[in-house]
Amino acid sequence: MSISPYKPEYFMKQALKEAEMALAKDEIPIGAVVVLKDQIIARAHNLTESLNDVTAHAEMQAITSAADFLGGKYLDECTLYVTLEPCVMCAGALAWAQLGSLVFGARDQRKRKEEIDRIGIYHPKTKIEGGLMEEECAGILKTFFETKR
Amino acid sequence: MSISPYKPEYFMKQALKEAEMALAKDEIPIGAVVVLKDQIIARAHNLTESLNDVTAHAEMQAITSAADFLGGKYLDECTLYVTLEPCVMCAGALAWAQLGSLVFGARDQRKRKEEIDRIGIYHPKTKIEGGLMEEECAGILKTFFETKR
Repeated sequence: MSISPYKPEYFMKQALKEAEMALAKDEIPIGAVVVLKDQIIARAHNLTESLNDVTAHAEMQAITSAADFLGGKYLDECTLYVTLEPCVMCAGALAWAQLGSLVFGARDQRKRKEEIDRIGIYHPKTKIEGGLMEEECAGILKTFFETKR
Repeated sequence: MSISPYKPEYFMKQALKEAEMALAKDEIPIGAVVVLKDQIIARAHNLTESLNDVTAHAEMQAITSAADFLGGKYLDECTLYVTLEPCVMCAGALAWAQLGSLVFGARDQRKRKEEIDRIGIYHPKTKIEGGLMEEECAGILKTFFETKR
């Protein structure tokens, strides 16, 4: 069975490729792509260590890059694919961007998640799907943290 | 009475100067400075319109700039002065930065504030003080929004 470039799995694979690039730099392996009408308009991976910058999460860079490509701040027609469920900072940024759709891979295990979900950080119009290719997305993180112990 | 450069009001005045720079660019007037041992190591103001980037809040740029100055990601010995209470995105970023102290001017009026406070987005070690020079900090925002109506 061939993979169509238009399936969500195709785009998550591209996000995973970004995560692999982060891993190669000894960064926590998280990757993201922004898709508009089946076209990838931005790619990014976590660079917090390389840039000495806590704000350099994959999603933050992807938002900036996509907005730059579009020449506008809002990503309401875009889908962001990211290998890990966004943190509070990134969720807040995606809300400001009025993101159209969010698809994430691995689920965040932090205990505050339910409460954060409940207060609704995301933009009310953003469609959210979690757990796509969860095993692969979580696997690369697990491998990274095992080597750090 | 002279203003000592070491009083919180001095630093908030510097953050207000940044807000005025934003205003001059027709940006929502919010400014921030990062202080380490009574020295301003970063200055920034909101540039979301100029940069077409929802992540270009004053605090985000101040964090990046301060970390660049320090050559390290963490701001645990720093105080960030900002003219408006941080949004969820910025609060999340300040948590990642393990900010030492936060001093903000105007209070955010959004209805979710209490809930966000309750779940504790900020780093547990960050000391938080709100309402410093609140009138001036809120005033510049009020003026801006009045001209937009």
